[in-house]
Amino acid sequence: MNGAQSLVRTLVDCGVDVCFMNPGTSEMHFVATLDAVPEMRGMLALFEGVVTGAADGYGRMAGTPAATLLHLGPGLGNGLANLHNARRARTPIVNVVGDHATYHKKFDAPLESDIEGVARNVSPGFVRRGSYPETLGVDAADAVRAALGPPGQVATLIVPADVSWGPGGIVAAPPPPPRRQALDAPRVAMVVDVLRSGEPTALLLGNAALGTAALVAASSIANTVDAKLFCETFPPRVARGAGIPEVERIAYLGEMAVAQLEGIRHLVLIDAKAPVSFFAYPERPSSLVPENCEIHVLAGPADDVTTTLEALADEVGARPDAARLAGGSRPDLPTGELNVRAVAAAVGALLPEGAIVSDEGNTSGLFASSMTAGCPPHDWLFLTGGAIGQGLPVAVGAATACPDRRVVSLQADGSALYTLQAWWTMARYGLDVTTVLFNNHSYAILNMELQRVGTEGAGDRAREMLDLSNPDIDFASLARGMGLTAWRSRTAEEFSSHLAAALNTPGPSMVEAILPTPG
Amino acid sequence: MNGAQSLVRTLVDCGVDVCFMNPGTSEMHFVATLDAVPEMRGMLALFEGVVTGAADGYGRMAGTPAATLLHLGPGLGNGLANLHNARRARTPIVNVVGDHATYHKKFDAPLESDIEGVARNVSPGFVRRGSYPETLGVDAADAVRAALGPPGQVATLIVPADVSWGPGGIVAAPPPPPRRQALDAPRVAMVVDVLRSGEPTALLLGNAALGTAALVAASSIANTVDAKLFCETFPPRVARGAGIPEVERIAYLGEMAVAQLEGIRHLVLIDAKAPVSFFAYPERPSSLVPENCEIHVLAGPADDVTTTLEALADEVGARPDAARLAGGSRPDLPTGELNVRAVAAAVGALLPEGAIVSDEGNTSGLFASSMTAGCPPHDWLFLTGGAIGQGLPVAVGAATACPDRRVVSLQADGSALYTLQAWWTMARYGLDVTTVLFNNHSYAILNMELQRVGTEGAGDRAREMLDLSNPDIDFASLARGMGLTAWRSRTAEEFSSHLAAALNTPGPSMVEAILPTPG
Repeated sequence: MNGAQSLVRTLVDCGVDVCFMNPGTSEMHFVATLDAVPEMRGMLALFEGVVTGAADGYGRMAGTPAATLLHLGPGLGNGLANLHNARRARTPIVNVVGDHATYHKKFDAPLESDIEGVARNVSPGFVRRGSYPETLGVDAADAVRAALGPPGQVATLIVPADVSWGPGGIVAAPPPPPRRQALDAPRVAMVVDVLRSGEPTALLLGNAALGTAALVAASSIANTVDAKLFCETFPPRVARGAGIPEVERIAYLGEMAVAQLEGIRHLVLIDAKAPVSFFAYPERPSSLVPENCEIHVLAGPADDVTTTLEALADEVGARPDAARLAGGSRPDLPTGELNVRAVAAAVGALLPEGAIVSDEGNTSGLFASSMTAGCPPHDWLFLTGGAIGQGLPVAVGAATACPDRRVVSLQADGSALYTLQAWWTMARYGLDVTTVLFNNHSYAILNMELQRVGTEGAGDRAREMLDLSNPDIDFASLARGMGLTAWRSRTAEEFSSHLAAALNTPGPSMVEAILPTPG
Repeated sequence: MNGAQSLVRTLVDCGVDVCFMNPGTSEMHFVATLDAVPEMRGMLALFEGVVTGAADGYGRMAGTPAATLLHLGPGLGNGLANLHNARRARTPIVNVVGDHATYHKKFDAPLESDIEGVARNVSPGFVRRGSYPETLGVDAADAVRAALGPPGQVATLIVPADVSWGPGGIVAAPPPPPRRQALDAPRVAMVVDVLRSGEPTALLLGNAALGTAALVAASSIANTVDAKLFCETFPPRVARGAGIPEVERIAYLGEMAVAQLEGIRHLVLIDAKAPVSFFAYPERPSSLVPENCEIHVLAGPADDVTTTLEALADEVGARPDAARLAGGSRPDLPTGELNVRAVAAAVGALLPEGAIVSDEGNTSGLFASSMTAGCPPHDWLFLTGGAIGQGLPVAVGAATACPDRRVVSLQADGSALYTLQAWWTMARYGLDVTTVLFNNHSYAILNMELQRVGTEGAGDRAREMLDLSNPDIDFASLARGMGLTAWRSRTAEEFSSHLAAALNTPGPSMVEAILPTPG
């Protein structure tokens, strides 16, 4: 058994049985192993940003890591942005990066570069270089353990080619399952005191606090003690829809977030971070926490968050039926002009039960959340790290993890162009992903930010850098080029009809909404 | 004057007056400056790999740096692969990366990451973080000086948002022009001795030794002393065509390179590195230099290579007319089946005088070099660092640097998909780039490498990872989606006709050659 075979077999034994890949010569022994270890499913992507974003989407939905397979430093570079998003999502990923043979590195061949230095950007907690075929299995098991955490993380394993092809590989035993910290009674008691203080209090939920059970507990607490309930701006995954408590997100715009939190004296963090401004702006605060507001941590990434919330609910006498559940209602199908509100209404009218929404709608997604609040239960995946080009790859991974569910990818035009190659992977594997493409011919958010950061003197030459027209982009043509069925819609009626068709078509398809250019 | 204005004004004063960009919120003050400093030309790309590859192509043709403008760590990550290629090409680039405001970093906002660690991968010689608006001009001038070298390099300047928007910016004076080392007489004398030894000797040319004057000197030397003449496998830029000495490239395949160099006792390096295998292969050597072959360095990256070669020619009595110049001849237009030979013949028959060829044809480009050897003078740009996705962006940059010349981008299908967004930038700016797209539905080189690295047991599941069919990709549809005119060709006659039309069409267009799948 060579090193690569021991690596792949160990991953499979650890429950890691999907590998998104864009391999090169130094990874050929890993690729060849796919026939010897058929339990590992290899899935090809045509650009590494799709590989890493798909692994993120997979890990968010499956709860177990996918592996990646990347080609040396440049391959890792191409995949870095979506690994950054995965780091922020705390998604477990086993990030395998091939490298030159150990003895070849000193020759400084063209593809030689410092892989570790780049990997630390996204894998601060685990970067390891395999040294021998005999220990590569253990390296793999350690990477799986590190990826699972808690907290979940991107664990990078660098595999030199000769460690892959060398003999003597040994399959390692899977690590013990991850253990979250047991209930921290003093912290619960401390928060009970806060909630009984009578002072204005808010619970801020993140990450693991946004599954259905945790949301029910949190909502029942908030309603029982009259606290406000918020969640982070860009959480990795939120359960929502009819019968699930709806939770208000902290706004992206700092001035709106300040208004949301105004008057709050106690902010209780439940697997969440104290809110900060996404960017800095002249003369505006970076922290969005009100002055005189105390921060209290109920649970963090290493804790069993749901159990902790349920214990807190018990302590304050909040029964599950005190939770405020979203009612079941959908908007009517829209008519007339096609705009972002109409698109959201059509999505709300048609979203299938059990759908997974990959949301990179950015400014165009403004109404999507409210219009779908009463849809049948579904999951919503956000852009966690601000590195655009996440939405389509995450949809690939989510559809791979959940083949029985429909994935709806709400995708802004500018962001789509970073990783449009994801469409091809959807087509090859027949993934049930419906892309809704918001084509407003603009980096609309940057036109807004150009004002917000207080620039002076910006004119036509500046604005040209934020404009996606001249030439207009035909996303339907792009999607068809990648093998998808695609429609272009110019009215609300057209869009609704195309979206209904797309949702009823097995496999991937795309509906491009031609929207007015903002501003 | 704010920091950004002093930065941009300094760059312009230093002769850096093109900035390829894909900016975000933290770079808005730089963008706003485009109206105040109209001498700086901003050019938008829709993905950072296009930004950095365009800066590489620009620098190779202009000899002076372009600037980039990238958005924090993820933007740098997206641009890293083509900066890697630029590092290998020693292309001067001023790589500007925006960052959060200095005081905002401690809040660990979603886009926060370690930019320096990633930048060192491609900018080992110069990574600087701007600290004050008052000194940002000096930082910019220092970055230009570092970029120009010698040797040329990617100089990374990280610019926090508040350093951009803060007042007090001061325009810095341009650095002195770069100085190459004067002639090193002892080294020349040493090489004269080698050349007169009577033992089998080869000259190996790289980088600055591949301009016309250097080639004439080198060829005259080789013919006078009966030495062999080679150039590196993937040099950044080679002058070639009728009236210019043709130089044989060291082969990509190690076994062929070994045959080329067999029996050589002395290898004289002229701004070149001793040849090494591109990848490692079991049981095969990494170094391609024959045993018992001595290595001698005539000139390196810091030297005035052409002057040195001309001095050496004088010393050995090699007159310029001893150079062996390529004759002027073109292949006939091809007929019949469309294959890689026919594509190359059509290119050879039609390549305009003064063309710039951006070559990422990979296996499909096999005949391109020989079929164009007798074309009118032109320049040829190679994939220097092995990070695929370079060809189309480099074409953008070359066309920007040389608006009076036709750029021909010979582009393999698999590699094209990494940075296809380059087509949009060509369309927006009306760049005279003709893309020849080799569509063979395969990562053909990897199918070859799968054998060469000695894998065993690779079957259908492995081969599926190297296959670009299922679904077939329609590159014409992709190019049209980005705003280009595009043709699909299935016979040699069709291809020749489409290529002629494309070369005669102002602005960018694309011809997709549908080729047999190899193997």
